[in-house]
Amino acid sequence: MKDASEMSIPSYDDVVAAHARIAPHIHRTPVLTSSYFNALTGAELFFKCENFQKAGAFKVRGASNAVFGLSDEMAEKGVATHSSGNHALSLSYAAGRRGIPCHVVMPRTAPQAKKDAVRGYGGIITECEPSTSSREAAFAEVQAATGAEFVHPYNDPRVISGQGTCSKELMEQVAGLDAVIAPIGGGGMVSGTCLTLSNIAPDVKIYAAEPEQADDAYRSFKAGHIIADDAPVTVADGLKVPLKELTWHFVSNHVTDILTASEDEIVEAMKLTWKRMKIVIEASCAVPLATILKNPEVFAGKRVGVIITGGNVDLDTLPWIKS
Amino acid sequence: MKDASEMSIPSYDDVVAAHARIAPHIHRTPVLTSSYFNALTGAELFFKCENFQKAGAFKVRGASNAVFGLSDEMAEKGVATHSSGNHALSLSYAAGRRGIPCHVVMPRTAPQAKKDAVRGYGGIITECEPSTSSREAAFAEVQAATGAEFVHPYNDPRVISGQGTCSKELMEQVAGLDAVIAPIGGGGMVSGTCLTLSNIAPDVKIYAAEPEQADDAYRSFKAGHIIADDAPVTVADGLKVPLKELTWHFVSNHVTDILTASEDEIVEAMKLTWKRMKIVIEASCAVPLATILKNPEVFAGKRVGVIITGGNVDLDTLPWIKS
Repeated sequence: MKDASEMSIPSYDDVVAAHARIAPHIHRTPVLTSSYFNALTGAELFFKCENFQKAGAFKVRGASNAVFGLSDEMAEKGVATHSSGNHALSLSYAAGRRGIPCHVVMPRTAPQAKKDAVRGYGGIITECEPSTSSREAAFAEVQAATGAEFVHPYNDPRVISGQGTCSKELMEQVAGLDAVIAPIGGGGMVSGTCLTLSNIAPDVKIYAAEPEQADDAYRSFKAGHIIADDAPVTVADGLKVPLKELTWHFVSNHVTDILTASEDEIVEAMKLTWKRMKIVIEASCAVPLATILKNPEVFAGKRVGVIITGGNVDLDTLPWIKS
Repeated sequence: MKDASEMSIPSYDDVVAAHARIAPHIHRTPVLTSSYFNALTGAELFFKCENFQKAGAFKVRGASNAVFGLSDEMAEKGVATHSSGNHALSLSYAAGRRGIPCHVVMPRTAPQAKKDAVRGYGGIITECEPSTSSREAAFAEVQAATGAEFVHPYNDPRVISGQGTCSKELMEQVAGLDAVIAPIGGGGMVSGTCLTLSNIAPDVKIYAAEPEQADDAYRSFKAGHIIADDAPVTVADGLKVPLKELTWHFVSNHVTDILTASEDEIVEAMKLTWKRMKIVIEASCAVPLATILKNPEVFAGKRVGVIITGGNVDLDTLPWIKS
């Protein structure tokens, strides 16, 4: 593994450049408030609604920055990634906007709905067996055949700069925040948040929220080095991936604390958000609210930005309805 | 039944006065757009999101106007209604804001969740048997005992003036609309829309959308007089009630057409709205979109305001999930 010092660490200038580059392709998403949740938590919460984002998730920020930052020559060969989640959708969307191919390597066992969604945004799927070795072999083959540019879901300075535009907007939309909280999986959103806030609002505390059952970032943070989980199981399926060197750089340097919530607490916070705020959010985005409800003393009396990361949910299988 | 001429027909001045009166107690709800639905319909749709309204529905506009328009002397005795839906929630909310009692007569067989919701907003429930005679007897008793002011869910000029503030806001938020479409049950929202648009934007066409299985307004409109359904069954449970003289006045004079959709079309439009727009809407609010999808030739190329009337959904029993 490379040390962060060997990688290209993005600067806040990269965030500003990213915002100008991607502005025509993304939504400036609204910030919602809820008097119900304010009363329940004793805090003033400002929900930055990336569930309303293009392709349904914040990941389109980083993906668009990567795609639209390519030279024409590089862009011609397209982009590629291995993901079955929001990054695959987002990269497909961004590539479609630029009119270049997007290759996505996905296990053949991935849900049909996810394959359909990627194809719906114009992505070209190459199926592999559900193992790391098969995925890596299939991905190497795709890259060799196409020369497509690999865009990692989070361990990529272009992606982190793009994600940093979210809290840049939030700071423009809401004055006087004391803290911002976002879910943490691989750490792309949290790293972008750190990059932006450490530069333009260094007094704002940054919290990351993680499922207890996939608490590798929490344990890494406490241990002082990256610890990866072995196949964690959680309803917050966007948060299963481990930190990598670039995101670890930001998390270890700028995060105030990492808080965790149980599966039941996450599902309860998710359902309560749907019920009271009338918005469709993924389980992953409910983790911050779950941790706020669990740790009221940390947030009471504070103005807190809460990043709602996405809204791509399988409406046929909701975690609170037993089938 | 009284003729509309015997009733007090509200004027646009009443809408303006209502808006000033209720502004501190309601949200100015956002207007959302969806490039997906624009591409799908060939129209430009502007969704006025009353699902984000206080108490989760537009009905809080009319209820607040009635409550805050009472003299102190009348207000002291409280307000009363018979409803198990959004009007009961909204009237309870508005009464709570004024600090006066709200009496709600509900069948003892109403779902516990609805009783809990009314009580959650401070409403005082009197249970009756699930029959019209029992309801009327119970309601008369409550009124006699309390002297509370009856606020009908829709056949009330104060309520219609309040609902008219929704399209007043919409016209302030979106320029150049060609049409507005709203669901129709008793006709309160449609009447308020007629009242406002016939005064400030008489060229804007007004469409009402109704379930095929509760198409009494459609049949009334075609027949030229009020026809009431006998116990209609539809997933759009906010739209089962019949027109009354005051709402018939507005519907018969100002509505361009009434369009209907089947149960499957309504559920499909509801699920598609959740999936693509990431908002929680009631089945009733999906009827307009269902009729737009069914009658593209009516709306193609037009700028159309679509009133999303509410978001109070039982998340445990969604109509597309068979239990």
